Amino acid sequence: MGELVLTTFDWVPPPPRGFVRDLRIRWALEEADLPYRVASVPFKDRKPEHFAHQPFGQVPWLSDGDMSIFETGAILLHLGGLSEKLLPADPHQRNEAIEWLFAALNSVEAASLPWSLLKFSDEKSDTPAAKTFEDFLTKHRLAHLEPVLAKREWLAGTFSIADIMMADVLRLIDRFGGLVKYPACRDYLARAIARPAFKKAYDDQMAHFAAAD
Amino acid sequence: MGELVLTTFDWVPPPPRGFVRDLRIRWALEEADLPYRVASVPFKDRKPEHFAHQPFGQVPWLSDGDMSIFETGAILLHLGGLSEKLLPADPHQRNEAIEWLFAALNSVEAASLPWSLLKFSDEKSDTPAAKTFEDFLTKHRLAHLEPVLAKREWLAGTFSIADIMMADVLRLIDRFGGLVKYPACRDYLARAIARPAFKKAYDDQMAHFAAAD
Repeated sequence: MGELVLTTFDWVPPPPRGFVRDLRIRWALEEADLPYRVASVPFKDRKPEHFAHQPFGQVPWLSDGDMSIFETGAILLHLGGLSEKLLPADPHQRNEAIEWLFAALNSVEAASLPWSLLKFSDEKSDTPAAKTFEDFLTKHRLAHLEPVLAKREWLAGTFSIADIMMADVLRLIDRFGGLVKYPACRDYLARAIARPAFKKAYDDQMAHFAAAD
Repeated sequence: MGELVLTTFDWVPPPPRGFVRDLRIRWALEEADLPYRVASVPFKDRKPEHFAHQPFGQVPWLSDGDMSIFETGAILLHLGGLSEKLLPADPHQRNEAIEWLFAALNSVEAASLPWSLLKFSDEKSDTPAAKTFEDFLTKHRLAHLEPVLAKREWLAGTFSIADIMMADVLRLIDRFGGLVKYPACRDYLARAIARPAFKKAYDDQMAHFAAAD
């Protein structure tokens, strides 16, 4: 392991604060008690150097020595390789953590993203498209996630990167009232964000952006 | 490695044929020349046994001995661990393959999914929501992917699971005419689907569903 440097924006407007994706990485680093520092890139004027690390001009990315990694899923998987607190060593638990890491992104977040994009804009929230995405998220995803979370404290048996990803995806759904009918999802989310490492990560992100105001 | 069994639906209606996600896994298995067999579950009547393997009632899943894996990203990563033809051993190339595997799913497919869902339904394709998702896919994703693919034959230097995932995501965008303005994306896709392993995977999926008609 080299020096771990997490890069995020220098500033963002108030609405996304507390939901910028560097939080997922801060959370994992705090859970594993790994040393790291945070660096910033401009939010308003994104340079070629930024795109060289993150081809879509987003954040975060993580440097580990001379390795630069983008995509929060890939970064969490990399950190999982550095600490069993993030990715269990048992092959079956490890498999569950990795499949649920992908499921959080590609099954749940892929469904919540269009839903939440339309929630952000009032004039588009009462249309046939909004109904399509509401059904996609609730009937095809949350309704199936609910019985899974009703039976498990954490997705892979013990807390892992899968829970960091799933809980962060559920946070944005909860922000727009999407978990009202899913008590097991709400309880799971409450368990996850009660962890001291989440609280530290959240407070640090809020302080980082507030410092630039 | 145990016996590899890929499970998909017994039948699907004609429109999704050639685009069911077991194709990603067939393609990888063919590239790596790994022995496998294909099993089927009912499309029309999905049993508890199905949900036990794939909590959202989708396909595919892969069994490797007593391990059952869902999510195409997780399955490709698992197969990458079985063959360097799928995931290069060099740590930097390996990192690139994994971050682009996630980017194909969480950056590109997350943007193409709402876009393509609205393309499927004519009455929703000329609305403010459709415009939002069109911009999201083209301006925020494909416009940035284009210069990356203009400079590389394959995402991680050599062909890898990242290319299987990215090419399959681009196939559905191309099906609805979304790559017209992106020649490097089109050329990359053409290179990928010209591979004999893709052709075998595609033909096998088409034959599998046709056999159930």
